[in-house]
Amino acid sequence: MIKKISHIGVAVKNLEEAKKLYEEVFGLKIEGEEVSEEQKVKIAFVPIGDTRIELLEATEPQSPIAKFIESRGEGVHHIAFETDNIEAELQKFKEKGLRLIDEKPRSGAHGTKIAFIHPRSTLGVLFELCEETHK
Amino acid sequence: MIKKISHIGVAVKNLEEAKKLYEEVFGLKIEGEEVSEEQKVKIAFVPIGDTRIELLEATEPQSPIAKFIESRGEGVHHIAFETDNIEAELQKFKEKGLRLIDEKPRSGAHGTKIAFIHPRSTLGVLFELCEETHK
Repeated sequence: MIKKISHIGVAVKNLEEAKKLYEEVFGLKIEGEEVSEEQKVKIAFVPIGDTRIELLEATEPQSPIAKFIESRGEGVHHIAFETDNIEAELQKFKEKGLRLIDEKPRSGAHGTKIAFIHPRSTLGVLFELCEETHK
Repeated sequence: MIKKISHIGVAVKNLEEAKKLYEEVFGLKIEGEEVSEEQKVKIAFVPIGDTRIELLEATEPQSPIAKFIESRGEGVHHIAFETDNIEAELQKFKEKGLRLIDEKPRSGAHGTKIAFIHPRSTLGVLFELCEETHK
């Protein structure tokens, strides 16, 4: 079951500049930062209501975020749904004909299990499924 | 003050097809539909957590949503922040150097006051500010 929006991933060229916009102009608070070696991104977490915005800066030119910015420019990269059973959800999505980028969940930030769905099968939006493993 | 994400606007070509994806595959519930003559869109509301996704289908070729899809394809169109004082927020954004699409708030769905900020001044994301007028 999809419970809420875990986060919205936003691709930015320069994390420091983005943090200034979100903190000094929007008045939001940056909760912390993390580097994901696997995703090749540096992430700043911006809580808002029961969800958060994740500002994503590529750490290498081969990062998916660098490639995204190269072809589409900065902007919203993905929407992550929080689920309590990522395997069941992926199975259902597959049966319903969605194209999975990750057939099996892999490790995300904060000890989560994550999987991406191809935007060609979800009307242009890149969705991520995300399950907290220590609740 | 920005309180939460009011909604995420998602541009779709075909609202019926989109409703099927969000209801039958994602298992979310469509709360209602509305036509905005001013924005030239048909909107389906999909509550999720303390926010909602708004699925937006153009009702005319000159609709901003039709133009968006023409140039960028289907996908996330904007993120709307809920505020308790839209005029003060707009004033602050202007002083901080953001480029406002709407200098003054105008009427949105459900009796809200809304204003858009130009994505060139917010790192590629089209933001909307939104204030409930009957609380």
